[in-house]
Formats: sequence, structure tokens, C-alpha cells
Amino acid sequence: MTAVTVLGLGPMGHALAAALVAARHPTTVWNRTPGKDHDLDAAVARTAADAIAASPLVIVCVRDYEVAREIVDTDTLKGRTLVNLSGGSPQQARALAAWAADHGADYLDGVIMAPPEAIGGPEAALFYSGQHEVYAAHRPTLAALGENATHVGEDPGRAAAFDAALQDLLWTSMSGAVHAFALARAENIDATELAGHAKALLGFFPDMIDQLAGQLAAGDFPGDGGPISAAAAAMDHVLSTIRANGLDNGVLSAARAEVQRAIDAGRGSDGFARLAAL
Amino acid sequence: MTAVTVLGLGPMGHALAAALVAARHPTTVWNRTPGKDHDLDAAVARTAADAIAASPLVIVCVRDYEVAREIVDTDTLKGRTLVNLSGGSPQQARALAAWAADHGADYLDGVIMAPPEAIGGPEAALFYSGQHEVYAAHRPTLAALGENATHVGEDPGRAAAFDAALQDLLWTSMSGAVHAFALARAENIDATELAGHAKALLGFFPDMIDQLAGQLAAGDFPGDGGPISAAAAAMDHVLSTIRANGLDNGVLSAARAEVQRAIDAGRGSDGFARLAAL
Repeated sequence: MTAVTVLGLGPMGHALAAALVAARHPTTVWNRTPGKDHDLDAAVARTAADAIAASPLVIVCVRDYEVAREIVDTDTLKGRTLVNLSGGSPQQARALAAWAADHGADYLDGVIMAPPEAIGGPEAALFYSGQHEVYAAHRPTLAALGENATHVGEDPGRAAAFDAALQDLLWTSMSGAVHAFALARAENIDATELAGHAKALLGFFPDMIDQLAGQLAAGDFPGDGGPISAAAAAMDHVLSTIRANGLDNGVLSAARAEVQRAIDAGRGSDGFARLAAL
Repeated sequence: MTAVTVLGLGPMGHALAAALVAARHPTTVWNRTPGKDHDLDAAVARTAADAIAASPLVIVCVRDYEVAREIVDTDTLKGRTLVNLSGGSPQQARALAAWAADHGADYLDGVIMAPPEAIGGPEAALFYSGQHEVYAAHRPTLAALGENATHVGEDPGRAAAFDAALQDLLWTSMSGAVHAFALARAENIDATELAGHAKALLGFFPDMIDQLAGQLAAGDFPGDGGPISAAAAAMDHVLSTIRANGLDNGVLSAARAEVQRAIDAGRGSDGFARLAAL
């Protein structure tokens, strides 16, 4: 079994190390603040440089790219493969990949679409990007973190780009959900009662995603299934109800403003997907 | 079969009339602009007052409540049941219900969560509110419009309130979806490739809705499954990528500002559902 080093033992790093130990990889760990390793059957290195020297595969999972680069900036990195699982932007991933290449290390960038408790299990989705042959060489080892892993491309920024796009959808939708609950609450509708209908509505979302993707892939935005102008009218109805209840309307107002810019640009009769390609 | 009048033959009104005709209800139609009725096997009234006089059940489906009230403001309305399916706010629904009561008419307010082409079929969801006995009396007739119909309460504004809350979720999420596609596009990720992963992410949404509803129903907002402060950090990552690509960030920035207000109010360690009950 390949020896693996894990740098950073926050909740996620700790879960990664535990999954590697469970899969019987000889595992070395290091954390800036000691004492996070008591329950791990792993070797504990005294310095990051020592930890890196212990394994051909080095996983770093810390707060951000700046901290990651600072930790791995040692002579021992040369000839090893660095897998960065710290969160950040595609631009930061590309910069760290270039830095690793300059320092004689192979590089993979990854994102984890799962909470720490899901690591190693079937629900943990992981995206990796970077040279395909490097990924192929380490795939069997990385599978210990989660078998639902996808190599999304050789551009090292691509995993972070997927992550950002999906998190944009996630957090904007979550915001929509809490607004729906806030509006229901103001109108004396029970959260549980709304939830049932909200889940029924969610049942249509996969089809809507496919419709948006289909129009974007074709570069053609027919509005006959519901033009941008109809979305504007529907949003205005909702906004008037939000305002009548004295609730915050910042998020939907921002969405409405974007729709208005499309209308002002002469795209009101196009389909909603046009908003992603103005 | 109960005779029914449909006022307003826009795409939705036309679909309603066609569904009633298909269910063999004697149907009378009227539209301000003539010529929308050629393909309907229905009686065509010359005036709205004549159309209303033709049936005990009168459905109005026009641009908004103002137009609806103007059309039904006739002596012939007395003693009949008015079902308003024009879109608007709960406040407008309550006002029209009060007006109808003053004019001796029963009143139901309804919203249609479906496009015109789904009317009469199993995918058309309809919400009605108003006196339950009035709904019960007309339910067999209204079933022609869609059997997936729910009476959500006696408050005539309640159907519109449900509609507003669900549309808030819908349009905010749709906005998140087009932003995700725009970000993917800027990062050279194919729309179809993103769609597959977006649909996988959507698979977790029903559970998230249940979690939000559970916290709101309990009035208790534990943050251990992911506190508001973690959402703020995740949003900041996404926003930095959006900005690095020079894309519009208004919607997610508004969501982030709301999260910040919760943090400033000392709620950063609470769960995300707290945002609906600040």
C-alpha cells in the first residue's frame, strides 16, 4: 500500500487521514497545532518537512492556498506528488500547480463535495484536476477518500471551477429556500407544510437544469417555454408580496435587476438560459 | 355537469376553458379582445356581464387583480361563485375576496403551478384558498383543470402566499442555476458536463429542505451540521471566483450580505435556517 502524508488535521484533514488509515495505507500526519492526532493510528511527524519526506503522496488540507503553500514550501517536496484539497479559486489552483512544477513536484488539485463525516463513504463526491497520468497513478490510493471521484480535466483549476459553479447554485438556492420559509412564516404557513410543496417543486428542477444546459449547449435560446419577460413579471409578483410583509428582498431584487438588464439588452423574449450567456 | 364561465382567454385562460370543454362542462367564454375562441367548443358571450350570467361558477384568469375586479364588477355576479386564477399577492386576494362578499358572491382564490400546456393533466398543481364549503361544492368541477389540487386554507390569501413562497424559491434557484452555468462557461466547462453534476447536487436538496423545516418547526437552530459562519466562508470562496472571472455577482453578494447581518447579530454559529427567523 502506498504511504500517504496528510498535512492539516482540521475536521476535514482528520477525516481524510482516518479514511487512509482505515484503508491500511501507512499514514503520516502533521498539524501546526499538536494534539489533533491522538485517535489516529498514524505516524506523527514533528515538522511539515519531515511529514512530506515520509511519503511519495502528500495531501494538504488547510484553510486556504496561502497556508498550503507556506506549509509545503520545503526541499523535501521534490519528486513527490502534492494533492491540494484546501479550498480556493481556480486561479489559486493554477498558481499552486505552477509553483509545484517549479519545485519539481507533481500536482493534483481536488475539491470535496461532502462533509467530513461522509469521507470514505459512497456519498462523498470528489473532483480532481491536473495531469491525467498523475491522477491515474494515484487513483487507487485516493479512492480511500471516496470512490465517487471524478477527474474533470488536466487544467489544475478545473476542479475548483466546478466547485465554485456548483456552490454558486447551492448557496443561491439555499438562500431562496430560507426566503421561502421566511415568507411562509410571515403568512402563517407552517414550515413543514411548505416543505412538502417545496420538495414537489424541486422535482421539476432536474428537467429545468437540462433545459438550460440544452439551450446553452446549442447557443439557441427560444423563449416559447417561458421567456425572460415572463420571469420578470413572476418575480415582480413575488417581490410585491415580500415587500408587503416587510421582509428583506435583496436577493430576489438582485436577480430581478439582472433580468431587467437582459430585457434592456433586447433579450426579453429569449429563454431564461440567455442570462448565462449575455 | 355544472356550467362554467371563463373570463380571459390568454394562453392560461384558453387552456382552462379547453380543459372544461374536454370534461364536458357547458362552457361560456369571454375575452376583451375577440377572436381567441375559434377552436373552443364553447358559447361565446358578447359581454363579461353576459358571460357571468351564463354560469353559477365563474373563473377569471387575466393579467392581474385590478383587471379581474374591473371585469367582474357587474350586477350579474351576485349569488355566483367567483374563482380568481389571476396572479397577485395574498393582500390582493384578500381584498378581492372582501369585495366579492360585499357584492353577494362566494369567492375562491387559486394559483396554478403549471404552464398552460399542463392544464387538465396530472402535472398541473393547483392551490385554492377560501371557505372550505365553497371549495368542497365546486371541487368536482375544478378537478377538470387538474386533479392535483390542494385546498390550503380558508384565508383567501393563502394560495397566493404559498405561490409567492414557492416562486421565491423557484426564481432564486433559477438565478443560481444560470449563474452556475455562466461561471462554468467562463471557466470553459461545458454546460452539459456541469448539468450532470448539478443534478447530482440537487439530489441533496430535499433533505436540506427537510432540515431547514425541522429547525424552523422546532424553533431551534443547531449549527453543528454547518453553521452560518461556514456558509459565509463558502460564499466568499465562490464570490472570489466570480469576481476573478469578471462576472456579475449581485445575487450571491446579496445572499452574502444577509448572512453577514446574521453574523453581526451574533447568530454565526447557528444553522442556516436561522436566516428565515431572525
